[in-house]
Amino acid sequence: MSGNGDNAYKHELRALQIELVNLQRKLIESEARILVIVESRDGVGKDGTIKRLTEHMSPRDTRVFAPRVPSDREKTEWYFQRFVPALPAGGEFVVFNRSWYNRAGVERVMGFCTEAEVETFFATVNDFETLLVRSGLSLRKYYLDISRAEQKKRLADRQKDPLKTWKTSPVDAAALKKWNAYTKARDEMFARSSHPHGPWHIVRADHKKTARLELIRDLLAHCHYPGKRKKFIAPDRAIVFPWSPEIAHDGFLAR
Amino acid sequence: MSGNGDNAYKHELRALQIELVNLQRKLIESEARILVIVESRDGVGKDGTIKRLTEHMSPRDTRVFAPRVPSDREKTEWYFQRFVPALPAGGEFVVFNRSWYNRAGVERVMGFCTEAEVETFFATVNDFETLLVRSGLSLRKYYLDISRAEQKKRLADRQKDPLKTWKTSPVDAAALKKWNAYTKARDEMFARSSHPHGPWHIVRADHKKTARLELIRDLLAHCHYPGKRKKFIAPDRAIVFPWSPEIAHDGFLAR
Amino acid sequence: MSGNGDNAYKHELRALQIELVNLQRKLIESEARILVIVESRDGVGKDGTIKRLTEHMSPRDTRVFAPRVPSDREKTEWYFQRFVPALPAGGEFVVFNRSWYNRAGVERVMGFCTEAEVETFFATVNDFETLLVRSGLSLRKYYLDISRAEQKKRLADRQKDPLKTWKTSPVDAAALKKWNAYTKARDEMFARSSHPHGPWHIVRADHKKTARLELIRDLLAHCHYPGKRKKFIAPDRAIVFPWSPEIAHDGFLAR
Amino acid sequence: MSGNGDNAYKHELRALQIELVNLQRKLIESEARILVIVESRDGVGKDGTIKRLTEHMSPRDTRVFAPRVPSDREKTEWYFQRFVPALPAGGEFVVFNRSWYNRAGVERVMGFCTEAEVETFFATVNDFETLLVRSGLSLRKYYLDISRAEQKKRLADRQKDPLKTWKTSPVDAAALKKWNAYTKARDEMFARSSHPHGPWHIVRADHKKTARLELIRDLLAHCHYPGKRKKFIAPDRAIVFPWSPEIAHDGFLAR
Repeated sequence: MSGNGDNAYKHELRALQIELVNLQRKLIESEARILVIVESRDGVGKDGTIKRLTEHMSPRDTRVFAPRVPSDREKTEWYFQRFVPALPAGGEFVVFNRSWYNRAGVERVMGFCTEAEVETFFATVNDFETLLVRSGLSLRKYYLDISRAEQKKRLADRQKDPLKTWKTSPVDAAALKKWNAYTKARDEMFARSSHPHGPWHIVRADHKKTARLELIRDLLAHCHYPGKRKKFIAPDRAIVFPWSPEIAHDGFLAR
Repeated sequence: MSGNGDNAYKHELRALQIELVNLQRKLIESEARILVIVESRDGVGKDGTIKRLTEHMSPRDTRVFAPRVPSDREKTEWYFQRFVPALPAGGEFVVFNRSWYNRAGVERVMGFCTEAEVETFFATVNDFETLLVRSGLSLRKYYLDISRAEQKKRLADRQKDPLKTWKTSPVDAAALKKWNAYTKARDEMFARSSHPHGPWHIVRADHKKTARLELIRDLLAHCHYPGKRKKFIAPDRAIVFPWSPEIAHDGFLAR
Repeated sequence: MSGNGDNAYKHELRALQIELVNLQRKLIESEARILVIVESRDGVGKDGTIKRLTEHMSPRDTRVFAPRVPSDREKTEWYFQRFVPALPAGGEFVVFNRSWYNRAGVERVMGFCTEAEVETFFATVNDFETLLVRSGLSLRKYYLDISRAEQKKRLADRQKDPLKTWKTSPVDAAALKKWNAYTKARDEMFARSSHPHGPWHIVRADHKKTARLELIRDLLAHCHYPGKRKKFIAPDRAIVFPWSPEIAHDGFLAR
Repeated sequence: MSGNGDNAYKHELRALQIELVNLQRKLIESEARILVIVESRDGVGKDGTIKRLTEHMSPRDTRVFAPRVPSDREKTEWYFQRFVPALPAGGEFVVFNRSWYNRAGVERVMGFCTEAEVETFFATVNDFETLLVRSGLSLRKYYLDISRAEQKKRLADRQKDPLKTWKTSPVDAAALKKWNAYTKARDEMFARSSHPHGPWHIVRADHKKTARLELIRDLLAHCHYPGKRKKFIAPDRAIVFPWSPEIAHDGFLAR
């Protein structure tokens, strides 16, 4: 992010959103399909980021999917089955606000599934995503990473802000108490589900606005479409970068 | 709206959005179901209004449904069939950005359906809505009404704003050219589909921000839930008001 | 039924099935929609009857829908919501093997719903069906009625036949024990949900094969399509007949 | 098949159907999921075979899925997307009467898709099926193979039998005329989509009744469940056998 005040942010965001509109027009013309997965710990700003991402896109061709708790019947189905109807059709831009990675994160940490189910998940998720990508889907997976101090601050803010009280849930308290368990689950998720057709991209999200801008810039850089303007091909790699085994060891991630 | 500057608007909107969050908490507790239908001519600000309405509500319990063009198969089904899966489950707050009233508006004016289909629609829509309401659904129908001059201005602005170019479609041009046909269709829609369980509410939308505030205020006033604060029971009846035959004759509506 | 041996039955059934194929061809051409609801006590031969009815019809244009136990989510929705996606599209012939009338029968008798829910059901089911019929659906509702002795015999046979053991469930035992409660529920169902657009038709089902033939004959008689052969317009009214208040009082029904 | 008259067939079929009921009971207890895919040329007896297979199974836990022509929207989705909602939940026994292999057969031969789409299909179908199997689905793929003379005879019979006229379609005429194209497509389908987790099983279907019995016997032999009776573990390998490259060369298949 070149600017450094609120106006610079707004200006930058607007430029990126205009480019997203351009992208969408090309997407609709070409009948391509885009799926963006956004994951994070609780209180990290997924909702706000997704809001900016989709704010000015066509509601008819854009969908945000937030998976619900599975029904009794869904629990007995193929794990990916309930997500498939939400995949984009031709020309659609779909964002998953949480996704099948619930199984590797919240479900696992909170004990909502068995370790055997987690293993089956990791044994198949890469193949599933590869399948989708080889069938023409454009997939991008983001994880918003945040420090413990920042999470604590945001969850506290949440409780003070009457607009955000609905976000406060028993899972929140757990989010803080189980910080280490979530860290461990996150690291294993990266290690086991980063693959050539579906690499994880980390977004350093301690600075909320910068994170939003760079995530959008990275997404634009990643998408190939005619008429893309040059300035959208260089996201800030200190903010958004692909996961790699080195990163895991070098302490680049919040713990 | 009591205030009169941008700050007053923001302040007022925030207060209303906080109350919407309160409403939603009660809604979830009681497993009630709310359906808000928002209709208008093109370029009138439906999208922006709905954005403010749902901005701070829980994504998991809130859904905005924008009906797609029906598939070949759907065209042969019961007309309401494709809308039914989008109805709210217990605790959900659902907004229809356009709805089954497409048949009485754009489909009719643009000739996408037959007059016989329009008649079948009018012959059944009130009974259908009554059924839903008697089964416990809370239904509220809004029509954002706007003057010809204002629509023209907004559609022109749309073309200039790079964030809104995707909104420009061949239907836009028609929206202006067919102003009178849309007026006629609107008037018949009000006359034939305002009924005790589903009255139409007109929102004077020439002033965009006022329209947003008063629509939300009216919705809050209409919903019954414990702990509602007094100030949200008195929307401005010069801005939002139920349709009545007198209104139709007295020139209260844009033509 | 004119014949009286197994051969006569087979011959007659074949003739009726050929006519059903004719009906279906016309149905597909005209894009009409047929919904047949079949209800009964347990052990009465619904499955066998439906099997003969659909045996030779095109699998692509014919569907038998047997409603499942509702999911947690479905329980909070509009009661009819989960049935709507199963309604026929143009050209389709759909049979409901049990239906929304579960609420007036098994759910009520077994205590799976509240009496308030039963009341809401009766307060809306006629309007719902009327709506469908006025939108062009062809609806036919059959209730296979059987004497207590015959039901007892069939449920006993069921337990002896290894091909039917899956049909034996805890509900079976209840079916016999709660005979009177089911009788009462049935009578109220007839009285409150027989209406001009959806009259109940009783099928005397103590004689299984006759019941099958006459149900099909009645259905053919009821459907209007070009080229129907004369002989299919006169079902045996001693076997299949519309419910009426007189019938309720005159002891025509099993008790 | 040990017997050789109509009575022997009936007796044998009944024994197998009883065992299928046993299988289903165990299936429901264990919440396992079974998917049986049945493919063939036209006029080969898929419908009749599937009818016998499912005849006495519980309608609530058994489903036959016959894919429809895809809608405009579905055509732009991931190819497997519209099939996924039809996959079995826990305890369900699902038969696909035609399947995703339409793309490798009728769609390809009749030119309803591009060769590029066929290539994408072959490039992903094995991975897709492997995914399902590794997630716990029990999959069995049958192809009913029939000689040219027999197909001709059956299609001719079809036209004479008033119960089967609905089966006669323009695709029928093509079925005969395009015999060689279908043969070629079949051979490529076997070669490219037989894989360890989803081998194709050929059923010699010139003798209709034998084919039905052996297909069921093979299915029972393949399924593991407690209490299976010994006699159901030895299907006739001259009738049902896995595809292998040798078979392709040795003229075991109809051409």
